[in-house]
Amino acid sequence: MGLRPSSHAAHSAMPRYRITIEYDGTCFVGWQAQAQGVSVQSALQEAIQRFCGESAIVKGAGRTDAGVHAWGQVAHFDLVKSWDPFRVQEAINFHLKPHAAVVLECAVVGEDFDARFSAVQRHYVYRILCRRARPVLDANRVWWLPHDLDHDAMADAASVFVGRHDFTTFRAAQCQAQSPLKTLDAFAVARSGLEIRLSVSARSFLHNQVRSMVGSLKLVGEGKWNRTDLAAALAARDRTRCGPVAPAAGLYLARVDYPAPAGERALRVT
Amino acid sequence: MGLRPSSHAAHSAMPRYRITIEYDGTCFVGWQAQAQGVSVQSALQEAIQRFCGESAIVKGAGRTDAGVHAWGQVAHFDLVKSWDPFRVQEAINFHLKPHAAVVLECAVVGEDFDARFSAVQRHYVYRILCRRARPVLDANRVWWLPHDLDHDAMADAASVFVGRHDFTTFRAAQCQAQSPLKTLDAFAVARSGLEIRLSVSARSFLHNQVRSMVGSLKLVGEGKWNRTDLAAALAARDRTRCGPVAPAAGLYLARVDYPAPAGERALRVT
Repeated sequence: MGLRPSSHAAHSAMPRYRITIEYDGTCFVGWQAQAQGVSVQSALQEAIQRFCGESAIVKGAGRTDAGVHAWGQVAHFDLVKSWDPFRVQEAINFHLKPHAAVVLECAVVGEDFDARFSAVQRHYVYRILCRRARPVLDANRVWWLPHDLDHDAMADAASVFVGRHDFTTFRAAQCQAQSPLKTLDAFAVARSGLEIRLSVSARSFLHNQVRSMVGSLKLVGEGKWNRTDLAAALAARDRTRCGPVAPAAGLYLARVDYPAPAGERALRVT
Repeated sequence: MGLRPSSHAAHSAMPRYRITIEYDGTCFVGWQAQAQGVSVQSALQEAIQRFCGESAIVKGAGRTDAGVHAWGQVAHFDLVKSWDPFRVQEAINFHLKPHAAVVLECAVVGEDFDARFSAVQRHYVYRILCRRARPVLDANRVWWLPHDLDHDAMADAASVFVGRHDFTTFRAAQCQAQSPLKTLDAFAVARSGLEIRLSVSARSFLHNQVRSMVGSLKLVGEGKWNRTDLAAALAARDRTRCGPVAPAAGLYLARVDYPAPAGERALRVT
């Protein structure tokens, strides 16, 4: 399905809606519409079509891969007709019902708002469960490792990633970004019982960057790499130096930040 | 399936194993074996049978209903043969695989250990999600309410339950306990974002007691009842005075405590 060339050139007369979405990535081929399978984007577009008959294009802040979850993906779309945003949320959720996705909030925003390009910070969380027994209540929600990791060593090494770097080593071969330069603002590693939770924040990320960094930090947690090895892999700017990429199931798009009330015409509806 | 008359009279020559189990209650007809459907007990017994050929009876600390989850159910069983407990855990988990249940730890215990009768404290947690949008990542894991609750009022009212009381009002009609007298040791209500988490501890509970108490506390959280109404319902000792029983999906058997190393012959294996 083709994307509108530029959201900034959208028809000024059409109201723009911003939605925040939770989804279980296990049930989708990913955010983006594909030739085969149900994507979050296509499920949302179909729900909008059923609710009001309009064929809107839903543009997301982050194009999560198959299996990657979202606590707070953000997207926008334009409709010809003006609706109460709460009514839009309720109607989309009604028609989304067969799918493991739900709209958490909806607001009318200015035409200058773009879920992808207006975002000033993206927050991802990666969950690792370290225990001998496979997860049951968190099946498909964590990366399960049947052994423990040294989370202090991981936390120390993770600081290597913070700041502005060329992340070529930690970028998927099919990544379409023009530049491999990204600025990481935070990378925290915290333990809660048997779970290790990695939280990473940046204005934007390269394709597979978080899972690539987590996969290499896991080697540090296992004592196979140390902080110096990680720094050398980053400095090498060589994809073959990356550790095995961490699986999708542990990754969550947690939150997307935008500049304060940038042209919002309505308060958030929760 | 009949239960062994008394575990205290078990053959002294047979080693007894204590297991801690996590399960997703959504996938079972409950803990106890039923004429129809898969119970956690029957799934465990079948896994044991497949692993070593013995027809053991697995006795649990708490007979959770269909849909109720466990982070730490405890059970025991006897086998003719003596095995390394880690091997028992691994073998049961291998054969349990099609089911949403897993053994978290296994230990050899003394013949005086009984998962049900030796327990000195049972801890249940009840999760309520208060938000307009239905849960997706926590589907079947919480009681979803599309509106908020006053958790401070609930916390205050919950203290009415603490101590020794006749819980006839908060007991299922089919409850088989001889006495409705129980002593609640703690009842905490805490909020974390949109989730309200109720934690309750007692040596033992009546059938449906936690869900009955939570259902009535929800009325307090909605402002339909106050603390005095709750106290009056408790004092009435009348099942018809109970609020609607809370659904199974929000309830977790969190932990079961036993007296310190009572006859344990092996350290815990995690």
